[in-house]
Amino acid sequence: MRITSTANPRIKELARLLERKHRDSQRRFLIEGAREIERALQAGIELEQALVWEGGLNPEEQQVYAALGRVGRLALLEVSEAVLKKLSVRDNPAGLIALARMPERTLEEYRPSPDALILVAVGLEKPGNLGAVLRSADAAGAEVVLVAGGVDLYSPQVIRNSTGVVFSLRTLAASESEVLDWIKQHNLPLVATTPHAEALYWEANLRPPVAIAVGPEHEGLRAAWLEAAQTQVRIPMQGQADSLNVSVSAALLLYEALRQRLLRDSLTKTHSTL
Amino acid sequence: MRITSTANPRIKELARLLERKHRDSQRRFLIEGAREIERALQAGIELEQALVWEGGLNPEEQQVYAALGRVGRLALLEVSEAVLKKLSVRDNPAGLIALARMPERTLEEYRPSPDALILVAVGLEKPGNLGAVLRSADAAGAEVVLVAGGVDLYSPQVIRNSTGVVFSLRTLAASESEVLDWIKQHNLPLVATTPHAEALYWEANLRPPVAIAVGPEHEGLRAAWLEAAQTQVRIPMQGQADSLNVSVSAALLLYEALRQRLLRDSLTKTHSTL
Repeated sequence: MRITSTANPRIKELARLLERKHRDSQRRFLIEGAREIERALQAGIELEQALVWEGGLNPEEQQVYAALGRVGRLALLEVSEAVLKKLSVRDNPAGLIALARMPERTLEEYRPSPDALILVAVGLEKPGNLGAVLRSADAAGAEVVLVAGGVDLYSPQVIRNSTGVVFSLRTLAASESEVLDWIKQHNLPLVATTPHAEALYWEANLRPPVAIAVGPEHEGLRAAWLEAAQTQVRIPMQGQADSLNVSVSAALLLYEALRQRLLRDSLTKTHSTL
Repeated sequence: MRITSTANPRIKELARLLERKHRDSQRRFLIEGAREIERALQAGIELEQALVWEGGLNPEEQQVYAALGRVGRLALLEVSEAVLKKLSVRDNPAGLIALARMPERTLEEYRPSPDALILVAVGLEKPGNLGAVLRSADAAGAEVVLVAGGVDLYSPQVIRNSTGVVFSLRTLAASESEVLDWIKQHNLPLVATTPHAEALYWEANLRPPVAIAVGPEHEGLRAAWLEAAQTQVRIPMQGQADSLNVSVSAALLLYEALRQRLLRDSLTKTHSTL
């Protein structure tokens, strides 16, 4: 099937998914770009439709398109550039956009591992920032990112800035109070980053299971988070600017935990071979 | 004076500065936004003109506008929203845009401190990335960022993503080979980040004076940089994605250097009080 008009009812329906309220009510979202769709396929995200540019695909898109052909019950639509532009959030729209079902996962079902390294992204208001935070968490090996309030995980900019990691990484979203309750219920030590802390982040013991909370760049974490924290730490600021991008703060904390843990493991290894 | 038409020759002249070749030949650039203009003023950047929205300014902009009134020989222009939109790189243009002269600083004039912590940003092609790298370098306390090839420092997106830090932080731009020569000439140990290194970045000794080189996210550093490096290090990648944003890589390396140095200094202090 081929659709060239942006006034087509099916396209208008899809365009609504650029808004959170429609994503939340329809439990569906759009995925733009070959790499992002590939990561979603690998992660077992259920795709229902794929829109393909009638003008042709680049080599990377062709490869992913071939993989889409092997997905059962997937409606393929050939569309015009105008249609892609209407659904795209990029300056130059990708040649492939997919319609996906939201995975239904809840915080209650999740059990932290005995060695948990958990990142809690609290109240982030910029989708690009949440996407970048996910990328940092993936690289540093966080076992889950708990998204406590703020923007939703399936905003097009989250998907884009996470380079598709939003699909491969374990993520769970709930309200701030639900996430706080869950952390308390599992007796997980909470480490909160705040510019007002005495301790520097590398002075905290991040070897045991831990949940690390980062907040929005300027406002920081709300009082409830600081009160619930076993440890408050700060990232020393040496310059003129008063904050780091939250994806940088998250990476610094998570990589410090990784550093401490790899050091711990190599010491344990040395001892056990004695 | 008041200008409402985007066809006005003075406005067309200013709009050319959104392109690098015109910035380079005119040695001038635009600064959009109150915070960015404020940081430029504080850093002693010479401003020649200020464009002010005729529709009114927000409180932060009013404050900076008052400070602009105290700058000598500054031409103030009242402009329409259409004019601001033509010169802006934001979704919602700021109410203040300034025309500035490029500071003329050269690599030759700069002498590294005995305790130098230098970041070298090599061949970055995305202005937003260079801006974010500057923000990381400022926070971690790098004494200078050497911009080796890639985008120029005065692109509007660099200014924006650096949150104006581009003015307060010491920055020097030159070609890749000029920067490499300068590093060799000053006998500065070069630490290069590459996914192919054996050593993890926290295993490197970053206490002595050092220049840390980071490259573009996907291509990485060219052979000349790896060959010139005294130490090659990698950031361990635990996840699905194959790279971190370069501003995150820069922050991890610089903060590890800061951690090692603060630890060194506190040990020295303990010894000297014994």
